Amino acid sequence: MQAIQINASRSFSLAELPIPSLTEPYDILVRVRGIALNPGETKIFQSAPAGTILGFDASGVVEAVGPQAEALGFKKGDAVFSAGAIGRAGSNAQYQLVDARLAGKKPESLSWEDAAALPLVSLTAWEMFEEKFRLKPFTDNSNEVLLIVNGAGGVGTLAIALAKAVFGITRIIATASRPHTIEWVKKYGATDVLNHREPLGPQLEALGVSSKVTLAFITHDTPHYTKELLAHMRYQGQIGCIVETGNEIVPLHDPIAFYKSLSFHWELEAGKALYGYDLESQGRILTHISRLADEGTLGGSPVTVRKELSVANLTEMHKVQASGKSYGKIVFTVPETIQ
Amino acid sequence: MQAIQINASRSFSLAELPIPSLTEPYDILVRVRGIALNPGETKIFQSAPAGTILGFDASGVVEAVGPQAEALGFKKGDAVFSAGAIGRAGSNAQYQLVDARLAGKKPESLSWEDAAALPLVSLTAWEMFEEKFRLKPFTDNSNEVLLIVNGAGGVGTLAIALAKAVFGITRIIATASRPHTIEWVKKYGATDVLNHREPLGPQLEALGVSSKVTLAFITHDTPHYTKELLAHMRYQGQIGCIVETGNEIVPLHDPIAFYKSLSFHWELEAGKALYGYDLESQGRILTHISRLADEGTLGGSPVTVRKELSVANLTEMHKVQASGKSYGKIVFTVPETIQ
Repeated sequence: MQAIQINASRSFSLAELPIPSLTEPYDILVRVRGIALNPGETKIFQSAPAGTILGFDASGVVEAVGPQAEALGFKKGDAVFSAGAIGRAGSNAQYQLVDARLAGKKPESLSWEDAAALPLVSLTAWEMFEEKFRLKPFTDNSNEVLLIVNGAGGVGTLAIALAKAVFGITRIIATASRPHTIEWVKKYGATDVLNHREPLGPQLEALGVSSKVTLAFITHDTPHYTKELLAHMRYQGQIGCIVETGNEIVPLHDPIAFYKSLSFHWELEAGKALYGYDLESQGRILTHISRLADEGTLGGSPVTVRKELSVANLTEMHKVQASGKSYGKIVFTVPETIQ
Repeated sequence: MQAIQINASRSFSLAELPIPSLTEPYDILVRVRGIALNPGETKIFQSAPAGTILGFDASGVVEAVGPQAEALGFKKGDAVFSAGAIGRAGSNAQYQLVDARLAGKKPESLSWEDAAALPLVSLTAWEMFEEKFRLKPFTDNSNEVLLIVNGAGGVGTLAIALAKAVFGITRIIATASRPHTIEWVKKYGATDVLNHREPLGPQLEALGVSSKVTLAFITHDTPHYTKELLAHMRYQGQIGCIVETGNEIVPLHDPIAFYKSLSFHWELEAGKALYGYDLESQGRILTHISRLADEGTLGGSPVTVRKELSVANLTEMHKVQASGKSYGKIVFTVPETIQ
């Protein structure tokens, strides 16, 4: 098969490799048809060893099925989608091995690349709401005041859509700064939009929700926004973050955090596969996502850039993604022959 | 009435003050009969302005009732207990105003001082389990592996007792370092005891639960134990802390915390009164505590030191409490005449 690898000079190269064989009883072999690019990949690209095949999100057709995957109901010919796993060969290739517990049936109404846009971002947002904030899906949570920082990013977009469609939140405040991203977050269901290029405090005051934010979903610059939002959280408010901070300090030691009995959550959906924790839950969530996408209740495709997978296009889109100026999702069709 | 105040030379003095009048519709005026000392008070003592009446926990007899307190079912002559509130005159006095929503009926089977030992520590532990860790009371939580740091402290003791009696946790690992505190934590229900004078990691490995701790309840030296326990938490584990850290940094930015999708919770039961958040919940919890104490299911009185309230005894016990060498609860009977 063809795959795009990171090479020793830290750029992408095309490689011809054997089609992988099933290695684990839960494995399915997927002929990859669509993939999406995620911001985390541009960081991994900086440090991953030569030979690494990057790529998490994928959609495709099942070509071979391990015995435990078969017991879960997967069979040759199924159209599936998945967010992949850290430590396994990625989706920037024609074939990929995927743990079937981490996969769902692809939404029938979506193209391969539109389907590939969903797994990583929707799992991240869903797990934050259900497993970290502990909201019950498909219930009324109209008592919550949700603030999503960087609402037009991939996770931000799905967070808005799921907050509205699944988690019954009626007050969804999203940040965005450009006319087209402001329109974007409103389209997905944001009820109020703040400009994250200006201090958020006065804007929250103008909305009458300063000190009343119950849930802050931070998808950009964790230390800065965590610090800025402390004063605006309600007693027992929850701050959820998805971007690790390196040596920058998250101000958990701030007295305001203590006095308000705040909670801080990290969410990394890839951790479930990494630590072997309740893998089946991701299949269950993707089954919901597939149905919601087919029902049209997720606000439409979050895809903003569509490309054909090639070394040149992947290289260019990594740069675009790393610039922080993209919004929504960048996706690729995987062609019969990768250039 | 007599009260013990902090004076300008930062020591305690006896003062003769008017009996307070009801000021808020939810107020009850309590003739204080028993009080308990809490570690936080020894810190407040360092900085509180002259004239402050310290003291949180109290038990006593209701002498006057505001209209909203009456509507809640409180009446003159009731025996009650409460954890008081930040920003109001405290319980180191013969009379105290208390918001009835923060009070419960005193356990009938307990003495005044044994009852006074319970509110602050039991509210803190209960709120951590129910509102932060999100465990349902009176259900089976035998899938949890709980570690309580400093199990023989006031909150630690009640955390062990409530974990067993209310929150259905069957694996309760507590830390203690002296023979009598090891016996103490076992008496309340600890299933395993670790020595917190030695690194916890090898001891958790010996128990077979390294990387399997789901809940860490830290009641001492937050930055040190938060850091030490990161490696031993399970994916999606929760760390709850009750001791603020000043300028010491809690390692929320550690990559392990991110990869494991950990949650960090602050719990300060006094925050509910401070921020006006769901005050009635504390009355509800104290009603449960009262019943459990009368049923004898809390493991018996956590009191280790009993004194009569006086300027000399309060001064001495503040020093004992601040030394970190006490365990369980220090309580005082409030006499007819305070010396």
